[in-house]
Amino acid sequence: MRKIHVIGIGAGDPDHLTLQAVKALRGTEVFFLLDKGEATSDLVRLRRDVLGAHLPEGTYRTVEALDPERDRPARGADYRPAVGAWRGARARVVERLIAEELGEDGTGAFLVWGDPALYDSTLGVLEEVLERGAVAFAYDVVPGVSSVSCLAARHRTGLSRVARPVQITTGRRLAEGLPEGVDDVVVMLDAHQTFQRYAGTGEEIDIYWGAYLGTPDEILVSGPLAETAPRIVEVRAQARERKGWIMDTYLLRRRPRDSAERDAHERGAPGRGAPGPG
Amino acid sequence: MRKIHVIGIGAGDPDHLTLQAVKALRGTEVFFLLDKGEATSDLVRLRRDVLGAHLPEGTYRTVEALDPERDRPARGADYRPAVGAWRGARARVVERLIAEELGEDGTGAFLVWGDPALYDSTLGVLEEVLERGAVAFAYDVVPGVSSVSCLAARHRTGLSRVARPVQITTGRRLAEGLPEGVDDVVVMLDAHQTFQRYAGTGEEIDIYWGAYLGTPDEILVSGPLAETAPRIVEVRAQARERKGWIMDTYLLRRRPRDSAERDAHERGAPGRGAPGPG
Repeated sequence: MRKIHVIGIGAGDPDHLTLQAVKALRGTEVFFLLDKGEATSDLVRLRRDVLGAHLPEGTYRTVEALDPERDRPARGADYRPAVGAWRGARARVVERLIAEELGEDGTGAFLVWGDPALYDSTLGVLEEVLERGAVAFAYDVVPGVSSVSCLAARHRTGLSRVARPVQITTGRRLAEGLPEGVDDVVVMLDAHQTFQRYAGTGEEIDIYWGAYLGTPDEILVSGPLAETAPRIVEVRAQARERKGWIMDTYLLRRRPRDSAERDAHERGAPGRGAPGPG
Repeated sequence: MRKIHVIGIGAGDPDHLTLQAVKALRGTEVFFLLDKGEATSDLVRLRRDVLGAHLPEGTYRTVEALDPERDRPARGADYRPAVGAWRGARARVVERLIAEELGEDGTGAFLVWGDPALYDSTLGVLEEVLERGAVAFAYDVVPGVSSVSCLAARHRTGLSRVARPVQITTGRRLAEGLPEGVDDVVVMLDAHQTFQRYAGTGEEIDIYWGAYLGTPDEILVSGPLAETAPRIVEVRAQARERKGWIMDTYLLRRRPRDSAERDAHERGAPGRGAPGPG
């Protein structure tokens, strides 16, 4: 039976791989790399670097395929039908890759940035391939350090505060409003710097922003949202211009209203100690 | 200057350590292990096993201290003042450990289960120690695979669905109601199996539950909440009885209402493919 590993490889730092991930890499014969085109070929290269760092040359094979183009619906339009269609197209590509490139008892792998559980389509695509029924395989998932964990670590802050919830959401959702009942909101997949909408509302919010987390290009900015938002917009535009693409994420944290909570909050705020050992 | 690493060591599997975590372990002279008493001495032993697995004997030192007792407020009472007092007591213990056990240029570390960003007090305690001003040090954070990522990986499911948010919360918060506007809710620190409250509401909810994740004792149960809740309660009670303690977490997932979403949801559901390679 064919086997597939879905391997979370962390946010960008090759040292974010777990020992379990390294073992899974070593047990893999064929790596499937889907390339979204020029803008993200850096990301394919980074994946190749991960393989090169952990595997002896000549012991594995990589197969690249062009990821199907995704229709980008207008902003505000329903996102899901386009994603569904794209996932179907992707399933056909993946089905072909598995059927043609992997022997009957072969082991293949997909490398996923961060953790496969957060806003990644690989698991859904694999289930769709199995459902189509043309090729059979077993698969497992190797969890990884998410970009969310990496963001918090680099800012030396927690995501959750004592006994309080944290929400992970997307830029599109954030555009509909700050979620109710939760003061810590992590935003992923935000191409429109939606945080700007909440910079002028008078609400006391802090932002912890990071781009290219875990890589040598990493950028971190944090501070009160009202003052910090314009700086992030500028830094982000420059970085994107320079590299041709950007991956960023951020935490929005409402400041607590009463003083006991405020104390606890400030102790949780980053940057009060001396800088870390590196 | 003294240095401290706060190292996320994953949910329980020693192979969940990242390469970065292993490097940080190797650069550490003194490990501070806080013991909560008999019930969690298994956890101290597990931490010792992690050290033993990655470090040559005789190259490091461990210092154990008894974690201050925490007042457990009555259920429903405000949790935070007790946590604040406990954190203060803990800060005094940690201050003494750092001052007495770590040389002026020494490097120490705290090992944190899962990821230090989620419901862990270490960062808050370190900030409180710095604030007290009696001992100075630099610190950094090494992100880890959270029990949340591990749960999702073992169930082979995503946490988030396309363009939708996910909330991470506590048993106490869940007791106040299922959060609004979010269909995927991860619950941590739930000593009271609060999921039972939502088993009889008629709402279509699935649960993905896991205990002792990543360890040889791992238990996974999933299914429609109404049918599955009693089984989890039973399995959990037996396991707790057998081991003397339990660490568990779960995902509650509301089933989507319209059919397009239902399709996408079912593709995201686990256990449809053949079992994983292991």
